[in-house]
Amino acid sequence: MKVTLISHTPEPELACALAAKTCHAAKMPKGPMTREGMKRMLDIVIGSGHTSVLEHASFTFAVEGVSRSLTHQLVRHRMASFSQQSQRHVRLKDFEYVVPPTVEKSPKTAKAFRETMSLISDAYGQLAEMGVPLEDARYVLPNAATSNIVVTMNARSLHNFFELRSCLRAQWEIRKLANLMLREVQKKAPLLFEWAGPICKARGICMEGVTDCKFYKLYVKKKPS
Amino acid sequence: MKVTLISHTPEPELACALAAKTCHAAKMPKGPMTREGMKRMLDIVIGSGHTSVLEHASFTFAVEGVSRSLTHQLVRHRMASFSQQSQRHVRLKDFEYVVPPTVEKSPKTAKAFRETMSLISDAYGQLAEMGVPLEDARYVLPNAATSNIVVTMNARSLHNFFELRSCLRAQWEIRKLANLMLREVQKKAPLLFEWAGPICKARGICMEGVTDCKFYKLYVKKKPS
Amino acid sequence: MKVTLISHTPEPELACALAAKTCHAAKMPKGPMTREGMKRMLDIVIGSGHTSVLEHASFTFAVEGVSRSLTHQLVRHRMASFSQQSQRHVRLKDFEYVVPPTVEKSPKTAKAFRETMSLISDAYGQLAEMGVPLEDARYVLPNAATSNIVVTMNARSLHNFFELRSCLRAQWEIRKLANLMLREVQKKAPLLFEWAGPICKARGICMEGVTDCKFYKLYVKKKPS
Amino acid sequence: MKVTLISHTPEPELACALAAKTCHAAKMPKGPMTREGMKRMLDIVIGSGHTSVLEHASFTFAVEGVSRSLTHQLVRHRMASFSQQSQRHVRLKDFEYVVPPTVEKSPKTAKAFRETMSLISDAYGQLAEMGVPLEDARYVLPNAATSNIVVTMNARSLHNFFELRSCLRAQWEIRKLANLMLREVQKKAPLLFEWAGPICKARGICMEGVTDCKFYKLYVKKKPS
Repeated sequence: MKVTLISHTPEPELACALAAKTCHAAKMPKGPMTREGMKRMLDIVIGSGHTSVLEHASFTFAVEGVSRSLTHQLVRHRMASFSQQSQRHVRLKDFEYVVPPTVEKSPKTAKAFRETMSLISDAYGQLAEMGVPLEDARYVLPNAATSNIVVTMNARSLHNFFELRSCLRAQWEIRKLANLMLREVQKKAPLLFEWAGPICKARGICMEGVTDCKFYKLYVKKKPS
Repeated sequence: MKVTLISHTPEPELACALAAKTCHAAKMPKGPMTREGMKRMLDIVIGSGHTSVLEHASFTFAVEGVSRSLTHQLVRHRMASFSQQSQRHVRLKDFEYVVPPTVEKSPKTAKAFRETMSLISDAYGQLAEMGVPLEDARYVLPNAATSNIVVTMNARSLHNFFELRSCLRAQWEIRKLANLMLREVQKKAPLLFEWAGPICKARGICMEGVTDCKFYKLYVKKKPS
Repeated sequence: MKVTLISHTPEPELACALAAKTCHAAKMPKGPMTREGMKRMLDIVIGSGHTSVLEHASFTFAVEGVSRSLTHQLVRHRMASFSQQSQRHVRLKDFEYVVPPTVEKSPKTAKAFRETMSLISDAYGQLAEMGVPLEDARYVLPNAATSNIVVTMNARSLHNFFELRSCLRAQWEIRKLANLMLREVQKKAPLLFEWAGPICKARGICMEGVTDCKFYKLYVKKKPS
Repeated sequence: MKVTLISHTPEPELACALAAKTCHAAKMPKGPMTREGMKRMLDIVIGSGHTSVLEHASFTFAVEGVSRSLTHQLVRHRMASFSQQSQRHVRLKDFEYVVPPTVEKSPKTAKAFRETMSLISDAYGQLAEMGVPLEDARYVLPNAATSNIVVTMNARSLHNFFELRSCLRAQWEIRKLANLMLREVQKKAPLLFEWAGPICKARGICMEGVTDCKFYKLYVKKKPS
């Protein structure tokens, strides 16, 4: 899995802080703002859940080498834009695939998994050679087959994504993606994403009621009230 | 593939027609309306593209036995609600699968396809027995593996879905789904869906510029101006 | 203000409960379900925040006699469908208007308010008579001028609407609307909306940090953990 | 009315063109691309209606001095993000207002209009002084009262906005806004917005069937097939 932040709103913190000021100002506010001024404004809107102003900053990621299991989950997020490599049109000879850690950790399961991938690859190639269109030959391809996808989300949607997907109850592969995305945006916009993460970190609650989780213990205690 | 319309807004045509009247009436309009009155109103809004009023009627389908290729495409429609059978939680022993017609038509490709499905099924079972969690064992499952999904769309979103997916350039499986869904809603709300279908039928244009297509020839000539 | 539930998904609780079951069942579940079975299922999904299944039930309201201040706030909810009476096309002679309670409570402010409404009404009529198109004459009309609007939201979006708008910090008019809508949907779908209301009731938290509010005191203590 | 493009995705054409290439490439495409390469790619996706890739470029506008009539229409666009000056919290003494051209063109209507504005301003001030909260005193404020609003839309949503709002049948004020916004984005991303405009220009059709309109005559003839 490789995650690259390929584009984003310039000065994303400023864009959101100015939008927040607009709501309460007699004149349209202009930049620049000091870091302290932006932090004060953003802490208020994020802390109080008035996060619509976070929609003015967008982030675009190139995501490579993730499974189709992951992308099927990922594209369920509707406040987002996706452009995904098409299995209808791209011939995937010797396709690449993701091996789950629980499979990799035992030589026996790893071997069974890789042999299955190899058999599927052969079958896919044979079907294509026998004249089956790619869009139908791909019906044999496994969930593990990798895909590339460009993902754009605004900062509000990212907060929601992190709340759900960086939680320990999320599936391991999409959690890995969420963590890599979070690291990237925190570099570029620390004020926007300081408290982004699983909902226990972001909001001090666990919807699943799993209060003996290590994240819950870590975050619910640390969060300033 | 089995498509069942399991629920919908009662009197969907009336709901949309009353909403349309609201925009231009001094008093909140009340039902009932005559079929002619509804038809006049709905023909105007649909013909002139003022289709936001169609959002007041929703339709819910149970879709069974479709491939994960199809569902991955389907859930890209964001003006829709989905509840899909989870491969993370449901053990799919002897999983069922979709055989594409281009594979089925030759005994040789059909045999190769079925044998591959059988090998994958064995591998999935073995991985599960060797202690791999279901959510990871499923990485070997093919796109062809079937899924069940509940789909709700409003009439406006359905129009868009049909424009894109009942087009001859759509992939065969999702086109089949679109056609079955269209048949169901036309039974229940003929006035809402009389001109629903590929965009050449619905709008008299082909975005792809494929004017020698049989649908284009059929529909662009027939549509009243 | 008059709020009428004019249409909704039939058996809305069943629609959502069946959708929830679909995610974890090997076969597509069919109705009917017992009330106990539905309650068990819905309590789990609502309690744990897996509320996407609530999108399968929609509710349509006719809302009459609300101010344009209210509708301007209302249409900011984007997970909703609206058909609003047009001031561009509907002549509002002797337009009706909303008098805020804080204005009504003093004879002095009430009188000033009504006289202003009367002057505006005269100006609107004069401009129209002098040939100004309705869509421009309406520029003198006040926020208080009433409007009719048809509103459709699904149960998930309604939960969000109630969390924000039935809160004591919401503006009085939209809170009144939210409370009337909540009363209507609780009659038809008590299992879906038992814990709907301000976020302190629904989620046991106050985003605004106003813990000395009477709702917070009432609900955060009462909510079962 | 003042419209300023305050932020946008850097290299918006490249972001969209790379996303389009991702769908059909075996490897994740990297920039830079030549202008010709981008143009070829974008002409295909825009011409064929595969405009989801345009969602990866966003544009943020500061819009000042527009009427509340306009903003009420504007915020109906749901594929957009808004942060609007609040009349609940901002005291608008001597509020500014928009005078429609049809009112301005006759001294008689202009005078009647301005006198009404003045009376409303007095009433608003008096109510506030008599202790009515701002959020209720504003009920007397007219549609003409100006507002500031920050608007973010992606390029796909902007295309839709221009199709509807730069049409001659759109209301004059929002058409003026659309034209100013279009001019700004065409400067920054000419390849993305070359054919943006009323639907007759963008798609060669008029949904309203107004084929004797000067735009229809101008654009439907000029558009390359």
